[in-house]
Amino acid sequence: MGNKLYHGAAWYPELWNETVIEQDIELMKQAGMNVVRIGEFAWSNMEPTEGNIDLTFFVRMVNLLHENGIDTVMCTPTPTPPIWFTHGHPERMYVNEQLQVMGHGSRQHACTNHPYFREKAAAITKHIAQAIGRLPGLIGWQIDNEFKAHVSECMCGTCLTQWHDWLEERYETVEKLNEAWGTQIWSEYYHSFEQVPQPGPVPFLHNSSLSTMYQQFSMEKIAQFSDEQAAIIRQFSDAPITHNSSVAFSVDNERLFRELDFASFDTYATYDHPANYLLNNDLWRNFKRGRDYWIMETSPSHAASLASYAKPHPNGYLKVEAVAAYALGAEAFCYWLWRQQRAGCEQPHGSVISTWGKPTVGFPNVLEVEQARKEIEATILATRPTQAEVAMTYSDRSKAFLKTEPHQKLNHRGLVTSFYERILHLGLHRDIVPEGSELAGYKLLFTPFLPYISSDFMERATAFVAEGGVWVVGPLTGGRTEEHTLHTHAALGDLEQLAGVETIYTFPMDGSGSIGSAFDIAAPLSLWSAVFQPKEAIAIGTVEAGLTPGLAFLTERTYGQGKIVMLGSMPTGEKGELLLNKLIMHYADDAGVTLRTDVSAGTIVAPRRGDRYDVWIVVNMDGNGGIVTLPQDGIDPVTGMKYREGKLTLGRYEHKVIQFAGLL
Amino acid sequence: MGNKLYHGAAWYPELWNETVIEQDIELMKQAGMNVVRIGEFAWSNMEPTEGNIDLTFFVRMVNLLHENGIDTVMCTPTPTPPIWFTHGHPERMYVNEQLQVMGHGSRQHACTNHPYFREKAAAITKHIAQAIGRLPGLIGWQIDNEFKAHVSECMCGTCLTQWHDWLEERYETVEKLNEAWGTQIWSEYYHSFEQVPQPGPVPFLHNSSLSTMYQQFSMEKIAQFSDEQAAIIRQFSDAPITHNSSVAFSVDNERLFRELDFASFDTYATYDHPANYLLNNDLWRNFKRGRDYWIMETSPSHAASLASYAKPHPNGYLKVEAVAAYALGAEAFCYWLWRQQRAGCEQPHGSVISTWGKPTVGFPNVLEVEQARKEIEATILATRPTQAEVAMTYSDRSKAFLKTEPHQKLNHRGLVTSFYERILHLGLHRDIVPEGSELAGYKLLFTPFLPYISSDFMERATAFVAEGGVWVVGPLTGGRTEEHTLHTHAALGDLEQLAGVETIYTFPMDGSGSIGSAFDIAAPLSLWSAVFQPKEAIAIGTVEAGLTPGLAFLTERTYGQGKIVMLGSMPTGEKGELLLNKLIMHYADDAGVTLRTDVSAGTIVAPRRGDRYDVWIVVNMDGNGGIVTLPQDGIDPVTGMKYREGKLTLGRYEHKVIQFAGLL
Amino acid sequence: MGNKLYHGAAWYPELWNETVIEQDIELMKQAGMNVVRIGEFAWSNMEPTEGNIDLTFFVRMVNLLHENGIDTVMCTPTPTPPIWFTHGHPERMYVNEQLQVMGHGSRQHACTNHPYFREKAAAITKHIAQAIGRLPGLIGWQIDNEFKAHVSECMCGTCLTQWHDWLEERYETVEKLNEAWGTQIWSEYYHSFEQVPQPGPVPFLHNSSLSTMYQQFSMEKIAQFSDEQAAIIRQFSDAPITHNSSVAFSVDNERLFRELDFASFDTYATYDHPANYLLNNDLWRNFKRGRDYWIMETSPSHAASLASYAKPHPNGYLKVEAVAAYALGAEAFCYWLWRQQRAGCEQPHGSVISTWGKPTVGFPNVLEVEQARKEIEATILATRPTQAEVAMTYSDRSKAFLKTEPHQKLNHRGLVTSFYERILHLGLHRDIVPEGSELAGYKLLFTPFLPYISSDFMERATAFVAEGGVWVVGPLTGGRTEEHTLHTHAALGDLEQLAGVETIYTFPMDGSGSIGSAFDIAAPLSLWSAVFQPKEAIAIGTVEAGLTPGLAFLTERTYGQGKIVMLGSMPTGEKGELLLNKLIMHYADDAGVTLRTDVSAGTIVAPRRGDRYDVWIVVNMDGNGGIVTLPQDGIDPVTGMKYREGKLTLGRYEHKVIQFAGLL
Repeated sequence: MGNKLYHGAAWYPELWNETVIEQDIELMKQAGMNVVRIGEFAWSNMEPTEGNIDLTFFVRMVNLLHENGIDTVMCTPTPTPPIWFTHGHPERMYVNEQLQVMGHGSRQHACTNHPYFREKAAAITKHIAQAIGRLPGLIGWQIDNEFKAHVSECMCGTCLTQWHDWLEERYETVEKLNEAWGTQIWSEYYHSFEQVPQPGPVPFLHNSSLSTMYQQFSMEKIAQFSDEQAAIIRQFSDAPITHNSSVAFSVDNERLFRELDFASFDTYATYDHPANYLLNNDLWRNFKRGRDYWIMETSPSHAASLASYAKPHPNGYLKVEAVAAYALGAEAFCYWLWRQQRAGCEQPHGSVISTWGKPTVGFPNVLEVEQARKEIEATILATRPTQAEVAMTYSDRSKAFLKTEPHQKLNHRGLVTSFYERILHLGLHRDIVPEGSELAGYKLLFTPFLPYISSDFMERATAFVAEGGVWVVGPLTGGRTEEHTLHTHAALGDLEQLAGVETIYTFPMDGSGSIGSAFDIAAPLSLWSAVFQPKEAIAIGTVEAGLTPGLAFLTERTYGQGKIVMLGSMPTGEKGELLLNKLIMHYADDAGVTLRTDVSAGTIVAPRRGDRYDVWIVVNMDGNGGIVTLPQDGIDPVTGMKYREGKLTLGRYEHKVIQFAGLL
Repeated sequence: MGNKLYHGAAWYPELWNETVIEQDIELMKQAGMNVVRIGEFAWSNMEPTEGNIDLTFFVRMVNLLHENGIDTVMCTPTPTPPIWFTHGHPERMYVNEQLQVMGHGSRQHACTNHPYFREKAAAITKHIAQAIGRLPGLIGWQIDNEFKAHVSECMCGTCLTQWHDWLEERYETVEKLNEAWGTQIWSEYYHSFEQVPQPGPVPFLHNSSLSTMYQQFSMEKIAQFSDEQAAIIRQFSDAPITHNSSVAFSVDNERLFRELDFASFDTYATYDHPANYLLNNDLWRNFKRGRDYWIMETSPSHAASLASYAKPHPNGYLKVEAVAAYALGAEAFCYWLWRQQRAGCEQPHGSVISTWGKPTVGFPNVLEVEQARKEIEATILATRPTQAEVAMTYSDRSKAFLKTEPHQKLNHRGLVTSFYERILHLGLHRDIVPEGSELAGYKLLFTPFLPYISSDFMERATAFVAEGGVWVVGPLTGGRTEEHTLHTHAALGDLEQLAGVETIYTFPMDGSGSIGSAFDIAAPLSLWSAVFQPKEAIAIGTVEAGLTPGLAFLTERTYGQGKIVMLGSMPTGEKGELLLNKLIMHYADDAGVTLRTDVSAGTIVAPRRGDRYDVWIVVNMDGNGGIVTLPQDGIDPVTGMKYREGKLTLGRYEHKVIQFAGLL
Repeated sequence: MGNKLYHGAAWYPELWNETVIEQDIELMKQAGMNVVRIGEFAWSNMEPTEGNIDLTFFVRMVNLLHENGIDTVMCTPTPTPPIWFTHGHPERMYVNEQLQVMGHGSRQHACTNHPYFREKAAAITKHIAQAIGRLPGLIGWQIDNEFKAHVSECMCGTCLTQWHDWLEERYETVEKLNEAWGTQIWSEYYHSFEQVPQPGPVPFLHNSSLSTMYQQFSMEKIAQFSDEQAAIIRQFSDAPITHNSSVAFSVDNERLFRELDFASFDTYATYDHPANYLLNNDLWRNFKRGRDYWIMETSPSHAASLASYAKPHPNGYLKVEAVAAYALGAEAFCYWLWRQQRAGCEQPHGSVISTWGKPTVGFPNVLEVEQARKEIEATILATRPTQAEVAMTYSDRSKAFLKTEPHQKLNHRGLVTSFYERILHLGLHRDIVPEGSELAGYKLLFTPFLPYISSDFMERATAFVAEGGVWVVGPLTGGRTEEHTLHTHAALGDLEQLAGVETIYTFPMDGSGSIGSAFDIAAPLSLWSAVFQPKEAIAIGTVEAGLTPGLAFLTERTYGQGKIVMLGSMPTGEKGELLLNKLIMHYADDAGVTLRTDVSAGTIVAPRRGDRYDVWIVVNMDGNGGIVTLPQDGIDPVTGMKYREGKLTLGRYEHKVIQFAGLL
């Protein structure tokens, strides 16, 4: 893509007449849009009847945009198969876990594993790639739209058959499956792969292995569909390919992006929890390392559908979202959607332009974004996000484990976000890193909520520690095998040996009166917990009250040049927050983390590095203003305004770009 | 019907033996019952096996009642088709939105659109009308019972076919449907009417047009069934026909009553929210103008079924319900039910007589009603409800729009009731008027919660204003087209031109910190809102804080002899209530509303007009007693007791009839 | 069984290898386990393919256990039919009330009424009984596992047919059914048994008779299955047979245990409501009079599954559970489960040994239990639970009535438990007695929440009263017939005559402002209530406010040597509790109840009687310690420690065994 920061929107010209299209182009230019995304729901327009594909309209749109200085991200329209595909064909439709067969009229209604779906999806994709793949305005591709946003695991007959094939590939013989899943339990035992059911209605719960593996099957299948689409496009186009994903969807993002060219996400977090928004940036930056990510969709004001609406952003918030995104590594900040829908089910959704062609309540904020984008673009393009020293592990596979085993309605996203939020508020620059990422460059790694630690992960983490890293493990980490069963040699498997502890007991601490003490703070303990007898490790946190007084819930072992820290339980309540904050800062000190800022919570510093100088982009995200301590004098590279070393105050939703004379 | 006030009950003699029947008649006379309603669930008694219809029993009952001075309202028994209709015929049954096929054993289990249902319903109705239509005791008819009380839109195959026919009739060509509904969105596009689905299970939401139109289809179909039934009855009987309906059911009451002769409703509101009860009276009076309505069902004490029970009325409350109803225009006040059920699923439901033939806890209250009825009858019969000057628009079509688009679980009935309650508590005499009503005679019209304003309505409202009326429009009014899409020329369509405003933005104000100020009160704003730039209008209320400071949320335009007032948002909280009360009273003053009373909230005045004199019936509804200011001296027409001009105090659940010497 | 107290666990050797099995046996001996229960889910292990039954493994296990001094309770494995039974046979599966057909992979997935299930279940049971029935280690049998724990009434085609047969047997002619159920209501009327539906989806509610009778059908059928299993076992084994049941399951426990040899139950009550736990002991002691009951399953620490976990027991609580159980008449106290599951859906469930072969957090508590068991064993074996003087009626048939008619989400178990808890806290020794129990030996009987009083029950209760007992009847008792309809001659049927009252009204008192006064306490009244005019009775409690002032809600009639007390309503709130406590103690005095203790709430006294001496086992259940007044000096039979007459203090979770010199 180009050497610029993109500012764009999703556009549906196929829904409007020529007059509106012309008006839209004009307004886009006024608003500073330099990229639009088109086509993701337009299958019925492109192929109104089966086999009759006509892409003239979209070719014309890409060219028209290009003529007006606007680049295009083209989409494949596969989330919405037309009526000729669906009508009279219940066997092609998605089936939910209640075994209800989906009908036409919404989206994601087809089973994406059905062979005929794959065939027709490949055909339309090939035609689009051929027609549009080399147009000068085309700068990128998006496959489909928000995979598995509204659906999760399909229960149709096609999936049943493919599930059996997938199992056979994974386990080779059904006997290995039986052994891996422990199917002698409850007489589940299978004699052939054909007998293994989907996790449909049963009187109580399914075997954990079956539930988790069916999710993995589903996540692998949708990624394979994405792979197929990408391979077709690449035959006819050199433009890079992405998908607009989210942590909220039933996909394995790491696997999904493996075969894509750049990462992008959609977010509709509300203004009152900026951490929900920021987490995405700190995560998506790491799905395709070294390549900027895109925010492909966010609302200029509020998300909404017929059934609900979110709180609109206060004035000023959109700008800081955009500045924070660009500063944290985004190449693009794009809206859903350009022009408010006149029909369908998303009419009330926030947009840039209204159905009647006028600026929306978000429009003034879009102009603010555009102004900020122009001001910071040169600085951003001349620098790169500074390598973080602190990392936190992220795993969509863990999300599947927790969906199978939610303990007490635990929600993976909520757990991860609140752990992340602590690191954020302490002023530590951080990466959220997918499970499979390399760990070189980090000093401190947090790995909470990862029930299954793969041997590959264990090797990388061990090497990381051996070379001087500090690895904080838990809570809820390590207690399950790849197959979602328990270890039979130690509660936390091989992790215990590495951590130099023996897990004495595991049990749910909620309601047990357990109190843990560490760093001179005593706090209630919660969640499913492990308590340790330190072996090569030493106890840092000890249980003082409850069922297991005297045992450790927090241990530390020096290993090679680094340390392994086991956090067996979750301190909770006000005291628990204090304890966790102390823990984080203690190990940040221990690990020699220097990339941190004295900044008030609610304001963030995004550090970037240029050619022998550092830049800080400071952004007040919570609307309350903030204070940051500058370690040196700096200047605003645009205005030349000077900032003195020491305390700097920011106003409500204010941002500042501070370029330092050299490296910090 | 007769020149009397009716006091009656629903009776099920087919469930009891002759001894009980005789006892019932005797007890009815003791209790003062002068009308009973019979037959609505008795199909299996009338036609035990298919085609063998015998109405001897019911003929005898009507005659027996008549001999005992009790009139009869006869029902058609179509809510409960017998087992010979249902057994082995799933294709004749109602199918809910989860696609579950209903079974036998409850009621409303059949699809009322199935041709065979219509055929058998017509046959039994014809037989009943022939047998009973000219009996001397018969004074009226009720068709079926509580249409769509337990069900809403049927999803069966019959309905699918008729839906296609209905669409074809409405849109003529599928291309017009596609255009009207904007079906290029999400590739919904249809090539034939046969492809248009019912709004069954989908992964996300259906197109708003499809959801709303399916509701309209369903409401039209059930009304047509009612029309058919009425037409059959009229061949054999001159007695007037009604249906016992409710604002809670999935029907378009205005359409339903169009072909019926008089209006009636069922209500089971509890004593702690008298407005829920009173709204029905102020609404049903207006479905068949100039003809008194009936309360066909209410409990003498409490509603109940196996699954729940309501709080019983305190002693005294039933009497004020009845007095208020008669005073507000009811011709009849009838109970469900006379004798407590011994079987079925409504055994715990309040009744007049117990299963074992004794007075229930409600019986003493029934006697109170009867005494009051006798006392006020002459006065009521000599007067008519005084024409209200204030009206509020009611639309079941809007109810359908809000079911499709509930924003945040908005409930049409709740919204309407709380708006109504403000007018009630301010002592303004009022009508709730169906959308299609003539507006002549009113001075002030409120039209909140009407997403779609028909051109017909717009014409009538415009004329109303031109001739001097004040029309207060909104909130949530005017922003949708007939097809439940957005306008494309202005947020509120043609309404804006008439109102002399331009809607600058529409967005949800909840959580946005928006504050609106008007009449010297500043209040938080809420709900989906429109903010205006006054053109020919002037700003009366201005947004002071939030996203759009300086724009108007309340405007006023003089038009012809009257005014159009736009209320773009909903003031909320304590201050919001104050603001709305001020708004209502301000425009009542402005419109010259004189039919109002200085009465404490919880007590109502029902004004009636006789031959050159006015009567007030004052009723304490909340059990706390109340105070009303009399504008003149008056007398009680029964006791001759004199009331002096000025403050008059009422006790708990007390009512007074005050006849003034002349017109007020 | 043996002359000992059992202490055991459920064991699943079929899921583990030989090394683990050996380790388990060793650890069991260390933990003091003297009995294990095996086999209840092992069908696929015993009969891996259809007809190929091999029980070698289980024979070996029973022998191995025996060699190690551990007795065995053998189970039939019928809750989990193997895949060869289920795969491709939806017609054999359980169908829930939403008509969803259950799949393989959990448990209770088959319809237990399907003839082929019965055939295969009989075959495997016969083989097991033949192979294991006379092994020296075998001391008992358990049929299946937790009947109807996850499912309730099956809606499959097999059940439909058998339902019709059952109805025909019950009613002989469909006309009698129509009459009994009052099916003329809502035109439900049936012409043949074949037309009577199952209570599947309908728009509103089913007829109460149909709902309740379908539950009775289901409860009878599962009991018949149990009978069949027991009969097969008895052909080959003399060991006594039980089932591990619960008040929470959809079974009629009284009927179920009728053909079994001893009673046992499972309980997972948490420590914070000891009454939930204790009720089971006071109830199960009475299902097989004169034969000790078993606690077949309880957790050593916490119940859990993938989807939830309970609060773990604090240290010390398990021991008092066990001591209380043995003291109250349990012969066995057994855990679920011995070794934590490595697979399936119950991995997080509390156990004695972890998946990795180490003691769990519950293990130290198991050792405490074992020590206590050894200490008290001789005393327990030399004594029997003292016959209670106070009884409270228990009826699973009533549970079915309340499921059909929950009024306002009333829960039978909750109602019964809180009534029981009052008696418990007042220090009265008590039995919870199944509906059909003989009443000889009791002085005071409470019968709340029994909507239907059978004539058999009425006879026994009348005789009980005539001979000097005090019978407290209500609330919610007597108002329904056997068919779940209302009486037609009196609100409470024949009960009224016996009680010497006329029920004037029945109605729901919640929200009615009703206040009842008795024993100098005025309290709000609640629940569906009956108010009386005393005839031969006298008013003890009178309604002071609400709808029915002056009528009685509590009456008393002397009858024969005893009294009948009618409690027509439920006093509620703090004052209601006081009133109920006074009522209970008043009638305990009146009835001459002597078996009571001055003991603080939260601590219990379990009285036992030996050969001319009494023993009290005093147990602090709530962890707060307690005080009990000893009527005489006593000694600890193990330590010889002396206790002086008067106040005795117990510490947290302390228990004491006090043997008195003679009978008290």
